[in-house]
Amino acid sequence: MGKQTIYFRNKPQIISVSTVAGTKECEGIIGRYVENALSDDMYGESTYEKAECKMLRSVIDGAIANAELKRSDIDAIVSGDLLNQIISASFAARDLAVPFLGVYGACSTMAESLAVAAAFVDGGFCNRVVAATGSHFASAERQYRYPLELGTTRPPQSQWTVTGAGAALVADAATAKKDVKDDGIAITCATLGKVVDFGITDVNNMGAAMAPAAADTILTHFRNTGESPEDYDLIVTGDLGALGSRILKDLTWEKGLDVAANHVDCGEIIYNVIEDEFQGGSGAGCSAVVLNSYLHAKLMAGAFHKILFAATGALLSTVTSGQGESIPCIAHAVVLER
Amino acid sequence: MGKQTIYFRNKPQIISVSTVAGTKECEGIIGRYVENALSDDMYGESTYEKAECKMLRSVIDGAIANAELKRSDIDAIVSGDLLNQIISASFAARDLAVPFLGVYGACSTMAESLAVAAAFVDGGFCNRVVAATGSHFASAERQYRYPLELGTTRPPQSQWTVTGAGAALVADAATAKKDVKDDGIAITCATLGKVVDFGITDVNNMGAAMAPAAADTILTHFRNTGESPEDYDLIVTGDLGALGSRILKDLTWEKGLDVAANHVDCGEIIYNVIEDEFQGGSGAGCSAVVLNSYLHAKLMAGAFHKILFAATGALLSTVTSGQGESIPCIAHAVVLER
Repeated sequence: MGKQTIYFRNKPQIISVSTVAGTKECEGIIGRYVENALSDDMYGESTYEKAECKMLRSVIDGAIANAELKRSDIDAIVSGDLLNQIISASFAARDLAVPFLGVYGACSTMAESLAVAAAFVDGGFCNRVVAATGSHFASAERQYRYPLELGTTRPPQSQWTVTGAGAALVADAATAKKDVKDDGIAITCATLGKVVDFGITDVNNMGAAMAPAAADTILTHFRNTGESPEDYDLIVTGDLGALGSRILKDLTWEKGLDVAANHVDCGEIIYNVIEDEFQGGSGAGCSAVVLNSYLHAKLMAGAFHKILFAATGALLSTVTSGQGESIPCIAHAVVLER
Repeated sequence: MGKQTIYFRNKPQIISVSTVAGTKECEGIIGRYVENALSDDMYGESTYEKAECKMLRSVIDGAIANAELKRSDIDAIVSGDLLNQIISASFAARDLAVPFLGVYGACSTMAESLAVAAAFVDGGFCNRVVAATGSHFASAERQYRYPLELGTTRPPQSQWTVTGAGAALVADAATAKKDVKDDGIAITCATLGKVVDFGITDVNNMGAAMAPAAADTILTHFRNTGESPEDYDLIVTGDLGALGSRILKDLTWEKGLDVAANHVDCGEIIYNVIEDEFQGGSGAGCSAVVLNSYLHAKLMAGAFHKILFAATGALLSTVTSGQGESIPCIAHAVVLER
């Protein structure tokens, strides 16, 4: 109990998922597993922000529909996104009429929302909770960096914000048995992250900023559980990218933990030709899409039995960067077993 | 279980609190109960945002110190604020080295964070969790409205964002007995809010926008629990202000629930001479300060035995307002008993 790692004894389960992703995201291998591949990144909407909100709403509704349930069967939605005041999540929740807990963990939101959903289900407070997040390349660029119309060049350390969203419906074991007549993917444990800041101030180098947070949570997780990386089929990070992943492996190796053999980063695998996107994908939608499409399918098919899903988030804003602050980061990890 | 109202069976308790508030906030009656009354709203910092972050950090540390505990005794902090990317909470957490769950519920954050903290404690996942939030008049004006330097006039429906922060340390019953050798204030129940939007687009009339959300949650709470307003010493809303409070009373009365006799709004009581602040106080810090100073003191002294604390939040951003969207709002309610 406590001390960062918490255990879910009653087997809260992911009983259904749903994903949507943009044109660029669906060109790669991950794209084949995405439920709804967009042919238009605007998703028929008039603004980037409305497109992002529509993606999030569609995956929440998708996860509910995939379990053959109705919105009124859901006890709560735990969701957030990258936009100021998490407007995508709030406006999606407005249309759904389901109790809503807004969370903010930047790109760690998929892991944070899963941990909170699992706690509310495992604690006996709710039967069915949807955890969801997403991001949109264009809305993120406009808010955090430069409007796309400026045609700003990107430095080599930069990453590409994923246009996509993912949702997971978490239910208690008895409800799962009733709803889907099958075992889902159990969320057995979570290690809640601390905010870690190694003094990186380069807002185009998120991988380097976030790697120490990922290392801190992963090291804590293995110390607390007494497990080793070999106990997992995969140790998945969210969006460290190529450079950040190398830093993570170095940082953990220095502390005596070798994750190199089975580490994979969602940002590194989501795009087909990674050179075009520099260090790879990022954004709350990155790990949300990979988890709820590819990883979910592989877990359900028995290709993986147990994974550690550790999504990372950079907790900066344009104001903090403008005021000369470095970038505090966080990583939350959840254990998924089938 | 579920269906918006959840019950905490194991008596998670608020075992200590801490508050800080600005000069204007401490002129009124509530100010007498504030632990740390600032003589300078900049709190010795160089920017409004750093002052807000320092307030939040100081009340989290204050609540821990008031229970004679150390930071390392705390299993998690649940916190958020009004600023983009909840930087006050994230940067406060950076200095605390305690697992951090970022939440966003705008001005409903005190109720949302208390509900999440109570769930993590009651579910047996954590022993001690701090719920905290705050706001700063100047950082909120700059972000949501106009920089103070412009000297913009305010319309009569407007409210005044509270400069202040509050934190509550929630512990399970056994831990509480060990820590403070006394019963704290039990969090017995929570009704999680849905996002409600009545189509208000005037960003200077938050009270009118939020009142329907407050009415929805309060009506749901009484319907689900079978209780009536007379079962409570107070029905407290967060920051509806004078106009919003009148609308709430009308909306609930129309549905057959009369809350007029024991309703009080934190925004209506925080300032001494309410005419100067138009409709009263607002901001995440408003209900956080009133709950963790005045209301906490009165509950501990036995003046109140049971209150419904329903904080409301307006989930807009400058982008959604600019894109012509109306203002979605939410209210979360927690039951506090002594």
